[in-house]
Amino acid sequence: MLGIGLIGTGFMGKAHAFAYRAALAAFPDIPASRLEIIADVDDVIAAKAAHQYGFARSTSSWQSLVRDPAVDVVSITTPNTFHREMVLAAIAAGKHVHCEKPLSPSLADSKVMVEAAERSGLVTQVGFNYIKNPLLKLARDMVSAGELGDITGFRGIHAEDYMHDPESPYSWRIDPVGGPGVIADLGSHIIGMARFLLGPISEVSADVRTVIKSRPVAKDAKDRKDVLVDDVARILVNFSRGCGGTIEANWIATGRKMQLGFELTGEKGSLVFTQERLNELLLYKAGGDVRTSGYVRIEAGPQHVPYGQFCVAGGHQLGFNDLKTIEMGEFLGAIATGNPSGPDFREAYEIQKVVEAAIASSKTRQWVQVK
Amino acid sequence: MLGIGLIGTGFMGKAHAFAYRAALAAFPDIPASRLEIIADVDDVIAAKAAHQYGFARSTSSWQSLVRDPAVDVVSITTPNTFHREMVLAAIAAGKHVHCEKPLSPSLADSKVMVEAAERSGLVTQVGFNYIKNPLLKLARDMVSAGELGDITGFRGIHAEDYMHDPESPYSWRIDPVGGPGVIADLGSHIIGMARFLLGPISEVSADVRTVIKSRPVAKDAKDRKDVLVDDVARILVNFSRGCGGTIEANWIATGRKMQLGFELTGEKGSLVFTQERLNELLLYKAGGDVRTSGYVRIEAGPQHVPYGQFCVAGGHQLGFNDLKTIEMGEFLGAIATGNPSGPDFREAYEIQKVVEAAIASSKTRQWVQVK
Amino acid sequence: MLGIGLIGTGFMGKAHAFAYRAALAAFPDIPASRLEIIADVDDVIAAKAAHQYGFARSTSSWQSLVRDPAVDVVSITTPNTFHREMVLAAIAAGKHVHCEKPLSPSLADSKVMVEAAERSGLVTQVGFNYIKNPLLKLARDMVSAGELGDITGFRGIHAEDYMHDPESPYSWRIDPVGGPGVIADLGSHIIGMARFLLGPISEVSADVRTVIKSRPVAKDAKDRKDVLVDDVARILVNFSRGCGGTIEANWIATGRKMQLGFELTGEKGSLVFTQERLNELLLYKAGGDVRTSGYVRIEAGPQHVPYGQFCVAGGHQLGFNDLKTIEMGEFLGAIATGNPSGPDFREAYEIQKVVEAAIASSKTRQWVQVK
Amino acid sequence: MLGIGLIGTGFMGKAHAFAYRAALAAFPDIPASRLEIIADVDDVIAAKAAHQYGFARSTSSWQSLVRDPAVDVVSITTPNTFHREMVLAAIAAGKHVHCEKPLSPSLADSKVMVEAAERSGLVTQVGFNYIKNPLLKLARDMVSAGELGDITGFRGIHAEDYMHDPESPYSWRIDPVGGPGVIADLGSHIIGMARFLLGPISEVSADVRTVIKSRPVAKDAKDRKDVLVDDVARILVNFSRGCGGTIEANWIATGRKMQLGFELTGEKGSLVFTQERLNELLLYKAGGDVRTSGYVRIEAGPQHVPYGQFCVAGGHQLGFNDLKTIEMGEFLGAIATGNPSGPDFREAYEIQKVVEAAIASSKTRQWVQVK
Repeated sequence: MLGIGLIGTGFMGKAHAFAYRAALAAFPDIPASRLEIIADVDDVIAAKAAHQYGFARSTSSWQSLVRDPAVDVVSITTPNTFHREMVLAAIAAGKHVHCEKPLSPSLADSKVMVEAAERSGLVTQVGFNYIKNPLLKLARDMVSAGELGDITGFRGIHAEDYMHDPESPYSWRIDPVGGPGVIADLGSHIIGMARFLLGPISEVSADVRTVIKSRPVAKDAKDRKDVLVDDVARILVNFSRGCGGTIEANWIATGRKMQLGFELTGEKGSLVFTQERLNELLLYKAGGDVRTSGYVRIEAGPQHVPYGQFCVAGGHQLGFNDLKTIEMGEFLGAIATGNPSGPDFREAYEIQKVVEAAIASSKTRQWVQVK
Repeated sequence: MLGIGLIGTGFMGKAHAFAYRAALAAFPDIPASRLEIIADVDDVIAAKAAHQYGFARSTSSWQSLVRDPAVDVVSITTPNTFHREMVLAAIAAGKHVHCEKPLSPSLADSKVMVEAAERSGLVTQVGFNYIKNPLLKLARDMVSAGELGDITGFRGIHAEDYMHDPESPYSWRIDPVGGPGVIADLGSHIIGMARFLLGPISEVSADVRTVIKSRPVAKDAKDRKDVLVDDVARILVNFSRGCGGTIEANWIATGRKMQLGFELTGEKGSLVFTQERLNELLLYKAGGDVRTSGYVRIEAGPQHVPYGQFCVAGGHQLGFNDLKTIEMGEFLGAIATGNPSGPDFREAYEIQKVVEAAIASSKTRQWVQVK
Repeated sequence: MLGIGLIGTGFMGKAHAFAYRAALAAFPDIPASRLEIIADVDDVIAAKAAHQYGFARSTSSWQSLVRDPAVDVVSITTPNTFHREMVLAAIAAGKHVHCEKPLSPSLADSKVMVEAAERSGLVTQVGFNYIKNPLLKLARDMVSAGELGDITGFRGIHAEDYMHDPESPYSWRIDPVGGPGVIADLGSHIIGMARFLLGPISEVSADVRTVIKSRPVAKDAKDRKDVLVDDVARILVNFSRGCGGTIEANWIATGRKMQLGFELTGEKGSLVFTQERLNELLLYKAGGDVRTSGYVRIEAGPQHVPYGQFCVAGGHQLGFNDLKTIEMGEFLGAIATGNPSGPDFREAYEIQKVVEAAIASSKTRQWVQVK
Repeated sequence: MLGIGLIGTGFMGKAHAFAYRAALAAFPDIPASRLEIIADVDDVIAAKAAHQYGFARSTSSWQSLVRDPAVDVVSITTPNTFHREMVLAAIAAGKHVHCEKPLSPSLADSKVMVEAAERSGLVTQVGFNYIKNPLLKLARDMVSAGELGDITGFRGIHAEDYMHDPESPYSWRIDPVGGPGVIADLGSHIIGMARFLLGPISEVSADVRTVIKSRPVAKDAKDRKDVLVDDVARILVNFSRGCGGTIEANWIATGRKMQLGFELTGEKGSLVFTQERLNELLLYKAGGDVRTSGYVRIEAGPQHVPYGQFCVAGGHQLGFNDLKTIEMGEFLGAIATGNPSGPDFREAYEIQKVVEAAIASSKTRQWVQVK
């Protein structure tokens, strides 16, 4: 039985709590886990969260959580700037680590974290939950098996609109201390999805820009502050496998709440997906009866592993928190088996290298290799 | 802190387990609960389920579960024919009861159960989870507030295809001992949704039929057995509020996995919903700028209570199990406050009366009043 | 070369003009035609229309048009109450006749028209243009060939909203002199489509009602007039082939501009169509790879005859006027070959009998046979 | 009355014939036209086309057509390599000219054609028919009026799949004599649409590539020939107005028949369009009631000029040939009024400059200014 220590009680903290609580019910073969300690800088909030999420104990000291002998697994959901210190301490204490993305605002720091993790032999995972969708596993399997023929193109997007209003105030999210802007926040998801489906990206030419150049210092304030992080990134990509594509990350895409998706084209077929309808995957296969060919709307069902762990019948719909449960279930399973389920720290680092290459490309206005 | 006793370990048993485990994390103001005992006729299965779902104890005796002093709440997920006995025993033992739908194969038995529940003053609820969707609460609120004007029509459907193949074998689901067929199984959901949105149905004229007249006695068997329950029901309805509509229940609707939905029309607007895309609601409002009027695709978000208990941002998608969590959260909340969240036994009974009226109408080929 | 005489210059008159002008370009094998005379009660309007639509002559006398020796084909687009007289005169003059639907407000009159047409041996057609869609020919062919297995259900709808506003004034459309209301106007389209796909309807149980009971006598008038025709019809149907279904006609369906469509289910597959997206047909076929089964969105293309007469490539989209061109092309072709393309007067009469049976059923609250 | 001379009898020739035949019926205020001569190198085909399309005469000499005194307007639908000579001859003969896109395979030749046209004062137009969609006029008007706020991004695509199969043989379409490949054929449409909506493109960084590197010399042939034109183009763009975007042209997009569309985002709203559903435009407007905000699906209707010239009621659907009729109607109207309706030769030339800049960028792997 694995003792869980969770650092952070916000949105992602709650998502982790939901997922750890549901994981064994969904996946009977993984190790049982015990919600041991939850940490928050504010100990009243920590105590309240412990009650609400069902943790045995709470603390305001993440350091003590990390060192606690009853904790086997540390889950980190704090702001990015804290990740490095927490991750390194958890690894030093011999704990398996789940860390929300991105690993760190700095590529150099992420490298340190990856190396520490790999030296330790511990299991790590980073919170790219969207690719845990059973239909994306199907998509990847179809690509791998050659069912779509040679892949000829990829168009990936992660666009939302939470920053579209020039009058929405300056916040931590757009403070450059936390790293680049949308290209790290949303771009990392779609880059990760591209890599999950098609493998490494070798080269990029990007336009990474700040469209909304200043924001009020606070809600309804008259004073404004310059925005120093990007809000739109558009990237031409080459994959190592040889095909090209485009990737866009955008947090000023007015109207879009979760346009994380792609259109992936092969010589013999294609796939279309958007997280806005996460239980659907469109598939086109060339050939067959010309009268009746077209895009098939595949609806998620028990035939798409591990949907059946949640519902015995198709059409019932998985949600965001179920994807998080799959993520945590696979993570706990990986601890037991030693087979990492991914994406691990290494993968997060590779994604971050693409992000950094795109930023460099935009500055130099050149194509940049992803090394 | 409420002790939960769960009878049944199958699909719905697991769904209840997910929901009880998540309820407090989603709804911090409801009573905390303790997963006390789970029951299954097979005590090995019961023990395994206790481990997997996190119950403290297991038993093969539902009777002992019902009487157990550490159990405050009994959740019943067994086949319909057992409901009556279990419900009455639970009520007699002073336990609040959640029972999966339908209450019972027999309207007379259901009446007994309702009366026992109402005499007891205990909180009851029946598993009509789909109406727990935040967007359906919005729909009902818009109807109630008159935002769509006088309602002029309703077209409701619950169609799936799990029985569409004439070669799929005879099973408990189509044994008339369990009650009528699709009209009880799926029809009750869409009748319940209609009532949730528009209030009582006063009158029906129905065609309730058995299209697939025999089935193999077992998988790949040559011998066939006559099917004695209905597989399609089509109903003309009148609502007490004055408007008309149609309702269809169908479990041979080849291709449909979860076509539970409606189109609801008022003089000033209309709504379209399908459970196949449960995070979307289409709204049309008459008036406004003619150049840009049309159906609005509303995406579920925190503005639609209680979506925000699951995710802080729109577009992240609730799933089936989240609806079940809302259901259980409201049920536990109702136990604390004494304000029933519904649908309670009385409501389930009213739904069943519509089912019975439709069956009677189909036999007599007459309009039948729902008394 | 066939001389065309067109009676009526309104919306449908223009649609006929578009269609006759385009027919030969689309269908090189039909007889060439000559736009000979156009008639309108107002001879200034008639002359203007002749110029605009390219007719050689104009007249205010439909009687002279019908008798004109240069006219071989008469197209009638006037209000329903005039159809009988015009049709009988045209037939008496030995002219082939295209008449807009319905044939006549009175079933008895329609019968007279059918009998006169059949005695004459002339070619007749009635304006049920929507079934001229190449994708609906595909649908019918799939049904006929048994590709969907035994048909188990049909749900047909024709809903629009041009009368949804209780303040929109009384008009010819709702004057009972012109016949029943929505059940004739829109209901005949969906009944015709049902018959086109599945053959005769044998029996109906209907609720045909007037929801908006009075309307202003004129725009913005205070005085109101009782509405004596129906605005919603809901019908349970039995087809002669044995399957059941529902049909709805509705002109107060707020938001709907052209919801003419159906869901047609068979034991082995199903079809979904709506005129709102007339270039798409959804097809589900049972069996095949469970991972990738689902509804196929078929897009109209040259493989769907006669789409290729309009565009050499798929995806270019046919429109309403193209369907009208197909209709007229088939009509002119039928005149040359003697093989009626349908729907002819007889078919229109059969459709009208279903309409009348539904009205009778609604009055008696009984199932009524369609004789 | 304008005499029309049409050069070419293929797909586009037929489309022009449909459009000229319908134009006056749709647009009563434009000059009447007379289908005077049609030309094809094969005089039997020309004669047959004259009969089918309703031209008074036919010829195998485009030169005589161009000089014919009864011809006022010349429509050119031949392969691109012939455009220059025909256009210059038509202008020299004082004829207004409609030419299918692109003007010419060579930018230099196009420049000559533009200059000749502008010196002459004649009316010219180029066949970018898709932007004639009434909903795109609405889109442009909303952008111009600032209804979407400052525009922050554009994602444009024109993807089809007619060349996706590596075994489909070499053809004129991929012969470099005719100019570049997909970037000219499809790219020009989406570049034109981008300019129509947002104005000039100032700068591009592009990846223009040939994915399918060889093709059989003929159907089922074993010998293959190298493909020398591009089949996918992906372009980062900057508009002169300041916003960025991406444009993709792709003719190997397996499954796509007419994915010509865009997502256009402004600070206050956004628009989504695809030609696959040309009668729909999605609009999101920020602000308003948060419960019910979302994308509005606008359906084309008479409120969107000039839809009402084709149908009096919404929902009836325009098709490809109707867009062509609008194009020709506006062209003939422009001849009468002297107000060019566009896109004229100058606009086609500006579009071609973007195409050439993208090709140059792809070769140099640098951003390139569009001069």
